[in-house]
Amino acid sequence: MNIQERIAAFRRKMAEEDFEAVIVPTADSHASEYIADHCKTREWLCGFTGSAGTLVVARKEAALFADGRYFIQAERQLEGSGVTLMRMGTAGVPTMEEYVLGLASKGGRIGVDFAVVSAKFASELGGRLEKEGASLADTGDWFDEIWTDRPPMPQKKAYALDVRYAGRSAQEKLEAIRREMRKAGADAHVCNVLDDIAWTLNVRGGDVLNTPVVMSYLIVTADDATWFVDPAKADGALRDALAQAGVRVCAYDEIGAELAKLPAGTRVMADESKLTAGLRAALSQAEIVQHENPAFRMKAIKNETELANLRLAHLRDGAAVTRLMYWLKTNVGRIPMSEISVSDHLLALRQEQEGFISPSFNTICAYRANAAMMHYSATPETDAVLEPRDLLLIDSGGQYYEGTTDITRTFALGEVAPEQKKHFTAVLCSMINLASAKFLHGCSGIALDILARGPVWDMGIDYRCGTGHGVGYLLSVHEGPNSFRWHKSATRSEDTVLEKGMVTTDEPGIYIEGSHGIRTENELVCRELESNEYGQFMGFETITCCPIDLDAVLPEQMTARQREWLNEYHAFVREALLERMDNDAEREWLRQATRAI
Amino acid sequence: MNIQERIAAFRRKMAEEDFEAVIVPTADSHASEYIADHCKTREWLCGFTGSAGTLVVARKEAALFADGRYFIQAERQLEGSGVTLMRMGTAGVPTMEEYVLGLASKGGRIGVDFAVVSAKFASELGGRLEKEGASLADTGDWFDEIWTDRPPMPQKKAYALDVRYAGRSAQEKLEAIRREMRKAGADAHVCNVLDDIAWTLNVRGGDVLNTPVVMSYLIVTADDATWFVDPAKADGALRDALAQAGVRVCAYDEIGAELAKLPAGTRVMADESKLTAGLRAALSQAEIVQHENPAFRMKAIKNETELANLRLAHLRDGAAVTRLMYWLKTNVGRIPMSEISVSDHLLALRQEQEGFISPSFNTICAYRANAAMMHYSATPETDAVLEPRDLLLIDSGGQYYEGTTDITRTFALGEVAPEQKKHFTAVLCSMINLASAKFLHGCSGIALDILARGPVWDMGIDYRCGTGHGVGYLLSVHEGPNSFRWHKSATRSEDTVLEKGMVTTDEPGIYIEGSHGIRTENELVCRELESNEYGQFMGFETITCCPIDLDAVLPEQMTARQREWLNEYHAFVREALLERMDNDAEREWLRQATRAI
Repeated sequence: MNIQERIAAFRRKMAEEDFEAVIVPTADSHASEYIADHCKTREWLCGFTGSAGTLVVARKEAALFADGRYFIQAERQLEGSGVTLMRMGTAGVPTMEEYVLGLASKGGRIGVDFAVVSAKFASELGGRLEKEGASLADTGDWFDEIWTDRPPMPQKKAYALDVRYAGRSAQEKLEAIRREMRKAGADAHVCNVLDDIAWTLNVRGGDVLNTPVVMSYLIVTADDATWFVDPAKADGALRDALAQAGVRVCAYDEIGAELAKLPAGTRVMADESKLTAGLRAALSQAEIVQHENPAFRMKAIKNETELANLRLAHLRDGAAVTRLMYWLKTNVGRIPMSEISVSDHLLALRQEQEGFISPSFNTICAYRANAAMMHYSATPETDAVLEPRDLLLIDSGGQYYEGTTDITRTFALGEVAPEQKKHFTAVLCSMINLASAKFLHGCSGIALDILARGPVWDMGIDYRCGTGHGVGYLLSVHEGPNSFRWHKSATRSEDTVLEKGMVTTDEPGIYIEGSHGIRTENELVCRELESNEYGQFMGFETITCCPIDLDAVLPEQMTARQREWLNEYHAFVREALLERMDNDAEREWLRQATRAI
Repeated sequence: MNIQERIAAFRRKMAEEDFEAVIVPTADSHASEYIADHCKTREWLCGFTGSAGTLVVARKEAALFADGRYFIQAERQLEGSGVTLMRMGTAGVPTMEEYVLGLASKGGRIGVDFAVVSAKFASELGGRLEKEGASLADTGDWFDEIWTDRPPMPQKKAYALDVRYAGRSAQEKLEAIRREMRKAGADAHVCNVLDDIAWTLNVRGGDVLNTPVVMSYLIVTADDATWFVDPAKADGALRDALAQAGVRVCAYDEIGAELAKLPAGTRVMADESKLTAGLRAALSQAEIVQHENPAFRMKAIKNETELANLRLAHLRDGAAVTRLMYWLKTNVGRIPMSEISVSDHLLALRQEQEGFISPSFNTICAYRANAAMMHYSATPETDAVLEPRDLLLIDSGGQYYEGTTDITRTFALGEVAPEQKKHFTAVLCSMINLASAKFLHGCSGIALDILARGPVWDMGIDYRCGTGHGVGYLLSVHEGPNSFRWHKSATRSEDTVLEKGMVTTDEPGIYIEGSHGIRTENELVCRELESNEYGQFMGFETITCCPIDLDAVLPEQMTARQREWLNEYHAFVREALLERMDNDAEREWLRQATRAI
């Protein structure tokens, strides 16, 4: 079926079931950022492969709402599909909700699969439609029927994460959640968010590419906990581990029935911005205590075991990237290289590292102007051949038993234009300014962001995204609530106070369309410094361990303090990685690459 | 009467009228920061002279709630009064509300004068008391009776501020307010905030020391406006000017009766966090549309006329402070000088300036350790004699027809300890970092504060207050909503976006108890810089014009960029002020004081 046929089939369902329009979001039942192939219904239906975007199919028209990252890609991929691209945030473009309200007639029904949107979304949009005399109704999942070669639900085995990696037992974590439940006066807590569940139960799996989670739900009560998961995924060892924590295993599909069984008036703690509208409907007899999933904030603060493991993971991961840097620098122009072949070589180097499980996201390996597209992913069609000149940006990371990594380095493959060196150095100064911040406890990411953004803004440039995001522990590479951002948005938590043990990336950049893209990314652990009459001072420990390419640095553009930071960082990298290099040539090169400037 | 006798008289009233406890805040009927002597009932009753603090008098006990600025002063002034000092924000100290709740018994009445607390305060505390079976009731004003030598209500004449100073006519401003009323669906707007009223009507007066406002109220309807003011204050010229803007004059005390006359169901736009509980009660038949006073945000954005005037005011004001600096530097150790005599001399120099009306607040002139007390005010008892060494901090400002100024300079009167120079230079770097910020439109003060605070935090020190506040135009020296602060508080607007035309102070400092205090304060006008594909870039124009004492600067502690800023600033000061100096000696000295480093 081509796209038009798919949409035609979809419209036949719409007509059968009397919907004026149906919303197809990019979503699974777990408010996931990355979703399993089985859940990629929006992609199948309209052909746009970006990781975010919402499709609305009406009787005579269809529109895809995509954000700025995807304007170019979406335009290309939607060509000939009959689907209009809605450039979100652009003047004159309605929001998806406004568009849907415009489609609804009195008495008309707008549909969405309640299993893949949040209760909050459904109640807000439903409320607005009702005001217009229309309604929002549950379509259920039509894709099993019309998507004939739909991939099955993921089947990967789950496993228990030993406490030597997790630092705290599942039992302790469940007790901590129960304390939050008691504080909120809740009898039960229901969680559908995969990384919150994986953290709580110390389980991991492989249901989502590069994110080691297990498609499942969790109900916690005062003295019971039930994990809803495909039984085939949980073997005896895992069941034993869970039983020790007092966790029962139940089939994935039973969650709705189980929730409906709760006594009327049960006070259920749940986050309606993540809980699906479907589960909310199953809880119609319960009283919802709106509350962030307790695991959301708990898992953001890494414990000492996790931090010690993470440092080790970053040495291994940094060694792999450093060896790639050596290989690039010594071979570019001598052997054939392309964005994809370099990504493959990096994966091979990571696979040599102990504890490595998988990448933590699709590697971005982007040469010259490709790097100006912030979410570029090389395809055989775009795969650029590398030459011994200009800049190559590589943003990559690994999942290790010892934690999740995320690192970006931009490499000079030879001669680099002076303006690009200027940009490279500004980005480096930005990264250093934030990494070396000292601040009183109570600061949020919004109060610190300008330390990184300032040197870029000074040039009249902006990098149009956050400066950094939280990182999970053998979980999602993007994890809340901590972040570095400069202005408030409705859906984020920019004013989350930075607490000791939080891990956040520090990744300013400069992206010049059609020319080049530069990003330098380290991960920072928030730490306590001195406490005195003024309060508790905090700072950051940089745990990413890999040289920053001095070939693209203009030392005279840096302050003495910034140079000092860089020299100390390179001394740390040299000390830590010399023993992890493969041979004398690598070691000799590393000494040179980490020289003081 | 001594303090104990005053409190005893107050308790007799309490017993007569059956109150368990009465709250006496530091407040007038206009949510003013600075209040007229007539309104200083709390000060009269307990003897504490600080500008903030709330007294609670119960049958057997009394307590003053004071903030950190006043712990030392309040402790001294309350000695022997029988009033307990409650150190707000200190561990284990209840809030005033908690304390009052603890005093209330079932059926008991807690009192407060509804004419001096906000509707919001009364409804929140009243609600909490009602939950405990007690209530909050209006005492009315007891002080006319028990405070026998109470100063009368202020009687100063009011005057119209010409549009060549104000930039916009009262009529235009009233129209702008009516637009906001229409947007909010309100039929009327009632305002009790003196600077909002003065700005709207282009009137000024002298009812509050150093703040040129007129005790009054304002009601605006779709086609009418009424100013409630002591008729003796408004002469014919002023009445004519107001009549031109369609404003009727009515007696101050008529406001309550006038509000009560509004037809039932009238939609009245008001800010219940500022409107008094008394006026709210008079509006019991109306429907309140909770809304910030429109003038609050409008007046924060200075128009081009105001900005042009302000630049001029700052030249004059800077000339006065610069001439004081010359006088200090050339005369200290030769003629007798003390904190008070220097303040007097500074006032005399300001009085020589065209357009000068009064100081904009009580001058802080603080030598050595006195400067470590952030709100120190020299008294004959504390008045320090100046010697030709160490640091003198002077924070002062003027009211001019061309605007309000606020400037702090710290002067080296001779040799200064190396650590103090280090601190002086850090504070200077802080001030410069913020002044030279470049940022995208959308930034709030909270996103920029660390630029100033960073260099102080880097030393493990904090200045424990905001970095800066908005400044009125021939109005309050502290004006919202713009500010620079690093963490959120319930009552402030740290996330107000900085708009073109806002004027904010930039005044980092270092205060070392028992040793020294340093502050350098300039005023910044927010301006638009270039607009490009990334958005509208913003920056600051420094309008304060006075040398920064190079005798206390360690140039090697500054970055090249900071030195460059300082040299450019000093070139601007030199250019602007040479012609405003009195003689060749002053001019020669100014050239030296503004030399490049």
